[in-house]
Amino acid sequence: MPEYAIVVVEPKFEGNVGAIARAMKNFGVTDMRLVNPCEIGDGAWQRSMHAEDVLNSRKEYKTLEEAVKDCSYVAGTSGATTEKEKAFVRINHMPWELADKLKAAEGRVALVFGRENWGLYNEELSLCDALVNIPTHPDYPIMNLSHAVAVLLYEMTRDTGVDTNPDIRLASGKERKAMYGFFDELLESINYPEHRREKTSTMFRRMLGRAVLTKWEFHTLSGVLKGSSRKIGRLESGNLLPMDKKEDWPEETEEQLD
Amino acid sequence: MPEYAIVVVEPKFEGNVGAIARAMKNFGVTDMRLVNPCEIGDGAWQRSMHAEDVLNSRKEYKTLEEAVKDCSYVAGTSGATTEKEKAFVRINHMPWELADKLKAAEGRVALVFGRENWGLYNEELSLCDALVNIPTHPDYPIMNLSHAVAVLLYEMTRDTGVDTNPDIRLASGKERKAMYGFFDELLESINYPEHRREKTSTMFRRMLGRAVLTKWEFHTLSGVLKGSSRKIGRLESGNLLPMDKKEDWPEETEEQLD
Repeated sequence: MPEYAIVVVEPKFEGNVGAIARAMKNFGVTDMRLVNPCEIGDGAWQRSMHAEDVLNSRKEYKTLEEAVKDCSYVAGTSGATTEKEKAFVRINHMPWELADKLKAAEGRVALVFGRENWGLYNEELSLCDALVNIPTHPDYPIMNLSHAVAVLLYEMTRDTGVDTNPDIRLASGKERKAMYGFFDELLESINYPEHRREKTSTMFRRMLGRAVLTKWEFHTLSGVLKGSSRKIGRLESGNLLPMDKKEDWPEETEEQLD
Repeated sequence: MPEYAIVVVEPKFEGNVGAIARAMKNFGVTDMRLVNPCEIGDGAWQRSMHAEDVLNSRKEYKTLEEAVKDCSYVAGTSGATTEKEKAFVRINHMPWELADKLKAAEGRVALVFGRENWGLYNEELSLCDALVNIPTHPDYPIMNLSHAVAVLLYEMTRDTGVDTNPDIRLASGKERKAMYGFFDELLESINYPEHRREKTSTMFRRMLGRAVLTKWEFHTLSGVLKGSSRKIGRLESGNLLPMDKKEDWPEETEEQLD
């Protein structure tokens, strides 16, 4: 099971933050990260009950990007599927699907929750590898923030005793960032239309987010993307190398073989 | 699925009762029954948010026996398994086991929650047909009452058999085959080492298989892969086109926009 961090973006009510700390400790998760939160005062401490230690060791950040920098996988919660999201991601995960994908993973996974009244903004959603949606009733789909944390952590930490996946080593945040960079460079190399780049880039990220790549897969796919841009660059600059030169492709590393 | 009633025995904090009403409505359950509760005032109404109707239609009883009289099945929640509880009911259910037993049942099922500080008394436990225990961390096993209701209702009302994303159109076999072909052509274009092609090609296929691509995603990714091979081909043959020519990239089709 990965190590989970609970990231809450701009919570407005300190009571919710306290209740989240309690829910986290109930499910054995202690890494609390707040992005630009309200003031954390007595109301938060009261609601945290015996989880003062979680509240005490919370970390605060200015942006979501900063808060998830060291995470291998970022799952954003989305209260309801909007038209906008549909354009980017056709498939939201159900909580049990996400749990199933991640339960055998190693690494740090961020579960991101948005504002009480608004959820996550577009640019925050675009930082997520996957979106997860707690299925609720259409009459009143908006859950209390701490309830959403409790439900999701219940799902992510429960152990049904069935081990369906072998251990997966997730790529690090740095590796993932590099890979998405290679994809963007390729779009640049092939003169992909400017106005479609952002959408296509986000699509690529979410698609791979759903697939939950191993380190080996990340490295291999990175190699293909990088190799493509590089070849186009050499052809355009006229600095051709013998195309079948062995050094063009690094030998498989232990990483790739394991 | 049965009709669920949420029965709360002697809640001490009205805020919890309000938060429970909200959680109930979030999961489409409206039958709230309180046994000998604290006074229900402003604090409860505030926390219920848009579930005033649930709070409004609550029923109050003097005893648990009275509250569950019309129920076909009574499941009591137990924060932790004590020796005392074991004497009454040897096997606690995990929430998913209870959900599994009840999902095809007809009739009214009571889910009973006890006092914030003490849970259910012996004589109340003895009225239950089953005990259900939300698995929590031993460092702090006691959940907030409304969190416990949210988690249990999430588990009892979810239906993994329902297609929650009915509007996703998956790519056809032909489209998928074409896309894998484009990837293989790109490997060829960039002189990817022969002895690694098959493995990398299989990896790509499996990766996207796990991600379950939509038609739009397939078309977009196909465009990038095809565009890369094509540009390399033109550069190598010397048949350069103005690289920013619009025709280089087809306009988004209806497929991509819908």
